[in-house]
Amino acid sequence: MGYGKGIIEKYFNILPVNENTPVVTLNEGSTPLIKAENLRDKLGVGFEVFLKYEGLNPTGSFKDRGMTVAVSKAAEKKARAVICASTGNTSASASAYAAKAGMKSIVVIPKGAIALGKLSQALIHGAKVVAVKTNFDGCLKVVRELCEKYEVEMVNSLNPNRIEGQKTASYEITEILGDTPDYQFMPVGNAGNITAYWKGYKEINEKRGLSLPKMMGFQASGAAPIVEDRIVNKPETVATAIRIGNPASWRQAVSARDESKGGIDSVSDEKILQAWQELAACEGVFAEPASAASLAGLKLCLENKKIDKDFRGSVVCILTGHGLKDPDRAVKSVKKPVVVKESTEKVASAAGLI
Amino acid sequence: MGYGKGIIEKYFNILPVNENTPVVTLNEGSTPLIKAENLRDKLGVGFEVFLKYEGLNPTGSFKDRGMTVAVSKAAEKKARAVICASTGNTSASASAYAAKAGMKSIVVIPKGAIALGKLSQALIHGAKVVAVKTNFDGCLKVVRELCEKYEVEMVNSLNPNRIEGQKTASYEITEILGDTPDYQFMPVGNAGNITAYWKGYKEINEKRGLSLPKMMGFQASGAAPIVEDRIVNKPETVATAIRIGNPASWRQAVSARDESKGGIDSVSDEKILQAWQELAACEGVFAEPASAASLAGLKLCLENKKIDKDFRGSVVCILTGHGLKDPDRAVKSVKKPVVVKESTEKVASAAGLI
Repeated sequence: MGYGKGIIEKYFNILPVNENTPVVTLNEGSTPLIKAENLRDKLGVGFEVFLKYEGLNPTGSFKDRGMTVAVSKAAEKKARAVICASTGNTSASASAYAAKAGMKSIVVIPKGAIALGKLSQALIHGAKVVAVKTNFDGCLKVVRELCEKYEVEMVNSLNPNRIEGQKTASYEITEILGDTPDYQFMPVGNAGNITAYWKGYKEINEKRGLSLPKMMGFQASGAAPIVEDRIVNKPETVATAIRIGNPASWRQAVSARDESKGGIDSVSDEKILQAWQELAACEGVFAEPASAASLAGLKLCLENKKIDKDFRGSVVCILTGHGLKDPDRAVKSVKKPVVVKESTEKVASAAGLI
Repeated sequence: MGYGKGIIEKYFNILPVNENTPVVTLNEGSTPLIKAENLRDKLGVGFEVFLKYEGLNPTGSFKDRGMTVAVSKAAEKKARAVICASTGNTSASASAYAAKAGMKSIVVIPKGAIALGKLSQALIHGAKVVAVKTNFDGCLKVVRELCEKYEVEMVNSLNPNRIEGQKTASYEITEILGDTPDYQFMPVGNAGNITAYWKGYKEINEKRGLSLPKMMGFQASGAAPIVEDRIVNKPETVATAIRIGNPASWRQAVSARDESKGGIDSVSDEKILQAWQELAACEGVFAEPASAASLAGLKLCLENKKIDKDFRGSVVCILTGHGLKDPDRAVKSVKKPVVVKESTEKVASAAGLI
């Protein structure tokens, strides 16, 4: 349970690695599980609320758990490069771990699709970013062809090693709580993460007999293919990290929902941003907007009475990424500073002290 | 040594807290100590190089270690608010911990001095940000007067509880290494952090008899008051987190240098940015520009032969904040993506595979 280790060293026996796997790590994992007492009071509930703050992984998102395994396995195969079609957290993580491995990283993106700011991490970690005159599907096709022709490892979410690494978060939650939680609320985009957590909890259940949590997944209303049971061609939401119209792990997410007797529902952008601001203002936790789908989902379930507010037990909300990934959103969402003359009284008044 | 605890719970006995102190924590601390083998090879040195990645504290900088103690003590005193004059990491941390404590936070800044982006964290955590028509010294004066008149706790770096909290990083490094390092390289701005680390190491030395590291501090050339032994009226550097002309802990930094037989020197912005890019591209670690003063300093000492490259031992470089604090710098510093037609061959060529 040391914080001085990455997840491969910590969870060697449950991951697809062996003594010959070169361990490429940035000491990911061991992220905080924060007791959210202010939120609990505000919601007026009897259960404990915990926030799993995955934004404190090295590149600022949960992707690092999967990437340490995917890149280590790529290094074991002696791949020349890792490649992904991604404009966000995956490209940031892939390029950081590739840098650590001394491997090339290639990020393929549709031309014109993305602001450069979103790529700042990939760029600074030395990724070769190639903008292709096509759409996202066209990019994926190019990526697949490159993997066939060259010694290049695809680290998009279809890479099964990613899921294996990500499941370690279930183990950490269980370690800290001393038990599995009763409910887990989380955002659902490509659905790899709900798949991974569920795999982790099932393993823990098999090995230690601990009960399975109900898996509660939330998509954004404008990008809710699983909820609506149809591919969404033009997904739209402020929660960019879950702006996905055709999730790669769709089937597995439905299984996690059904096997756990949980649910997958959608929440509006307005509710997401409200929950996102609440996390920052009540709990001091600054997360990516997408992360707040978990709290927005919990609030929805309390309204709908899908979860009993007087129930005694534990609820974990997964916060998938750090708010610093999207600082502009914060500036857009708040009041500008007040300007006053140099006077202690005027400052006291502006600050609400008098 | 659990990651499931904040630093007050972990280091209760060495901090100025007691059973009546309400612990305000975001599970700060327990940050990675990353073995930098690529850098070691690149530098061609015989010693081990470690990176203490303090950017993985909750608000993205080392300030959280001090703030958990300062805000907990403010809560113990039943302060109505915490206040600071800061435009950067201190205001982000103060406002997050105040939010967690259910306390008001007030951030006083000189009007026109700062881009709103730097304040995104303070704003989203609900701080009352007041821009005053004066300079930084005028702001500090207003802050002091407010603290005299109202039940408001000042959490600027003059607050001694900040130093106490920050010293815990020395303990963590020693825990992970199993010993104190031989050298510690770190950025020096307001000089509170070098003061805190030195205090930590001296305590460890007294209690456990472990030897004291040499403290090697680095200022930016355009903001090097300690090196030049004079107040710098208009400090200038890209490393905004150490853009300080008159450090609050000046005297203590000089003591740390002299008592440890270390050194405080300056490094140019060019060398800082070069080291910053090296950290990201060779080690996969994205830090604030100021953080890279530690690596730039190590390289300077190797050039000057102030440190023997064949020496066998351990060197720790402190990386004080996360690179996501300043994403624009990354975008400014790298090549823009290449644009190509939809063709696997063209992408392969642009990515350097053929």
